[in-house]
Amino acid sequence: MSDSVSPGNLGWELLSSEELHSTPYFRLRSDRLRLPDGAVKDPYYVLERPDAAIILAVTPDNEAVLVRQYRPPLRSEELGPPAGLVEAGEDPEKAARRELREETGHGGGEWEPLGAVASSPSLKDNWAYLYLARGVEPVGEEDPDEFERLVVETAPVRELEAMISRGEIVSSSGVAAIMLGLARMRGGPGEP
Amino acid sequence: MSDSVSPGNLGWELLSSEELHSTPYFRLRSDRLRLPDGAVKDPYYVLERPDAAIILAVTPDNEAVLVRQYRPPLRSEELGPPAGLVEAGEDPEKAARRELREETGHGGGEWEPLGAVASSPSLKDNWAYLYLARGVEPVGEEDPDEFERLVVETAPVRELEAMISRGEIVSSSGVAAIMLGLARMRGGPGEP
Repeated sequence: MSDSVSPGNLGWELLSSEELHSTPYFRLRSDRLRLPDGAVKDPYYVLERPDAAIILAVTPDNEAVLVRQYRPPLRSEELGPPAGLVEAGEDPEKAARRELREETGHGGGEWEPLGAVASSPSLKDNWAYLYLARGVEPVGEEDPDEFERLVVETAPVRELEAMISRGEIVSSSGVAAIMLGLARMRGGPGEP
Repeated sequence: MSDSVSPGNLGWELLSSEELHSTPYFRLRSDRLRLPDGAVKDPYYVLERPDAAIILAVTPDNEAVLVRQYRPPLRSEELGPPAGLVEAGEDPEKAARRELREETGHGGGEWEPLGAVASSPSLKDNWAYLYLARGVEPVGEEDPDEFERLVVETAPVRELEAMISRGEIVSSSGVAAIMLGLARMRGGPGEP
């Protein structure tokens, strides 16, 4: 892999790149970078990871559909919006609809994008595409992945901000999805 | 490392753990996990990384103090709230005040915590501690880290939500900090 200086680089030049570890879930590489002032940063670690889709899904009764699951890195359970990986080349909204269906058994409703956030810009290259889905309803059984053990819960939309403040919803991208979705529902400047 | 079943585990048992890569910035390990129903997940990758502090810093003129920098993983520049790593055993607010000072030359003001978010609960173990600092002022020169090349910018607080919606501020934890800080400034349910 090589990369010359281009406008997108802002003068940072990728001199070389070495793969350290590759798995089905991510690829870890070590870059050698030349800064615009000539300084050389080596190593700069980058974790390449698939993009994700996250959904603030709201029922006609103004209940948010959430999932609770154990998170080994945190050694605790986590409650948050349904989310999942976007497959290579897949439309993120299609992935979002599939993950909502598989994780919660919900579908339908009116969908709108809330933008995308970068998960960890200093280390990871992946993006989370955020959606607001209003009026979703149960459409069938859940169909989780092999090692997913999910419990579906609902919470009143008006309670979500307080739940975040109390530390009951903690994922940074999930919090971003909820707060941007609430702003959109208020009809604030989030409107396109 | 070993870990028996405990309430915090929700019945997930850590059978073994192997270090794959260790750097000053993170440690990558591969876990073998037994789920409550007996299924075994191997490998489950966990990236151990220091916690961070992120600050929505607002001047007496209601301008947010932001930093713009090149992000190699995204191959683009990123505008967002000042942020930095919390050293082992350090009080996160102390780290936040230091990073605000070093990255932007600002200090003082009235500080309050906005809670903590988990950066990537499916892969990483780290937390970002979020702060709102109202009334910050220039107190001296910036003092960035060796390879930091930061440009300090300000933006009216009332514009932040629209900037996020336009994709001008993209970090998931930074977006969470701003949205929770704006909610706190509105005096919403974020009040403790």
